[in-house]
Amino acid sequence: MISKAKIKYIRSLELKKNRKAEGVFVAEGPKVVGDLLATTPAKLIIATSSWMQSNHAKTTGEVIEVTEEELRKVSFLQHPQQVLAVFPQTPPHVICLSDLDTQLAIALDGVQDPGNLGTIIRIADWFGIENIYCSQDTADVYNSKVVQATMGSIARVHVVYTNLAELVDNLPEGTPVYGTLLDGEDIYQQELVNHGLVIMGNEGNGISQEIAAKVTHRLLIPNYPKGRSTTDSLNVAIATAITCSEIRRNGNRNI
Amino acid sequence: MISKAKIKYIRSLELKKNRKAEGVFVAEGPKVVGDLLATTPAKLIIATSSWMQSNHAKTTGEVIEVTEEELRKVSFLQHPQQVLAVFPQTPPHVICLSDLDTQLAIALDGVQDPGNLGTIIRIADWFGIENIYCSQDTADVYNSKVVQATMGSIARVHVVYTNLAELVDNLPEGTPVYGTLLDGEDIYQQELVNHGLVIMGNEGNGISQEIAAKVTHRLLIPNYPKGRSTTDSLNVAIATAITCSEIRRNGNRNI
Repeated sequence: MISKAKIKYIRSLELKKNRKAEGVFVAEGPKVVGDLLATTPAKLIIATSSWMQSNHAKTTGEVIEVTEEELRKVSFLQHPQQVLAVFPQTPPHVICLSDLDTQLAIALDGVQDPGNLGTIIRIADWFGIENIYCSQDTADVYNSKVVQATMGSIARVHVVYTNLAELVDNLPEGTPVYGTLLDGEDIYQQELVNHGLVIMGNEGNGISQEIAAKVTHRLLIPNYPKGRSTTDSLNVAIATAITCSEIRRNGNRNI
Repeated sequence: MISKAKIKYIRSLELKKNRKAEGVFVAEGPKVVGDLLATTPAKLIIATSSWMQSNHAKTTGEVIEVTEEELRKVSFLQHPQQVLAVFPQTPPHVICLSDLDTQLAIALDGVQDPGNLGTIIRIADWFGIENIYCSQDTADVYNSKVVQATMGSIARVHVVYTNLAELVDNLPEGTPVYGTLLDGEDIYQQELVNHGLVIMGNEGNGISQEIAAKVTHRLLIPNYPKGRSTTDSLNVAIATAITCSEIRRNGNRNI
């Protein structure tokens, strides 16, 4: 049984200002909640008996068992999935730029769509990228659509909001700064090293002029056959995936 | 001014059975409608004066000028974009499997999410893939979320629903059938040729057993570093993009 006050509280977390004030976010479904519980104790878990049966040992904080109908009342999903949990937001991760001598990180310059941000977090997790630096106008990582699109990867990737121009200016000298730009060079023909910063831009406008000027490796994912009249662009998550795949493939061969 | 009957007609096209009965689909926004108008006359265009001013010469069929408020009443989008148009569904494209001796095609085995299908159509367009063959349980290409996610590529890529198992059985001997499978071989290490069929599976279950048995090139997109505990999988559109990118990169080098 769940109280009206609790339903109201959870629904209020749809808004960023309320999530921020409470310092929490909502995750849903056995996969995403399960991945988060592996590293982070939940503050509140609302689950059906079917989830409770197999996961009781993992629960933390306040736990409320509900019917599927009650779950529908609090869920942000069209098809609620057994469990919804409220987790604490993690304190901003310390930015350690010297890591970029050996590690790869992603920087997002105004990515707006929550689904794209979530998918990029999942891609980062796959390719062993632990840090994503976002401009202040990038979508909020704690938006429930972002959390769901990460499919649990939000538990393993740090997302930090910062001034991107300053961040790039403070990179150790010689750090590769990759960006896909319309006047870039064929990504398949470049020597890519397995560390540095991969910058991806806004869905409509790409990388902002200020940041684009700081890119050291201007890359282009060529369409096929080259020069054919086609779609103008790839989705930003798709471009991120191909760029990271190429860096990991290429970098691996150079070890 | 738009009539109530017209609003009701357009809203009815949210359902697949109504789209099928009428033989039409809805597209929205200057980019998607513009790309479609380049190849396909619209049956009905509903647009604000701002769109009409710069596109009047391109209009076909019945044209209704509306206010932004009226457009909101018919639009399927949260933020309507100047124009909504009703286009005829194209007759099913003839399946020509002998093309796969020289061309690349995609086959989708139960892709459910409209956003994923739309993004895959956009990827196909980018990589010069003209045909996508879908199992009957794949999402409907004329679903408005699919149409919007293609960003106009729906005007240039043929999508055909068919029995995939039969289709694969009828491929000319020696046609490469690519599939990403958990027990596949590192995609970066394979000799990939620039033609054949790329099979992608359902979001939760991957390629069905029946179809997986017919894959001749079992591929794996390796995570990084190899063997690290990470997300279980990549999103299906992301895996499609990386696979097509690798085939085009590799195939190009072999020309």
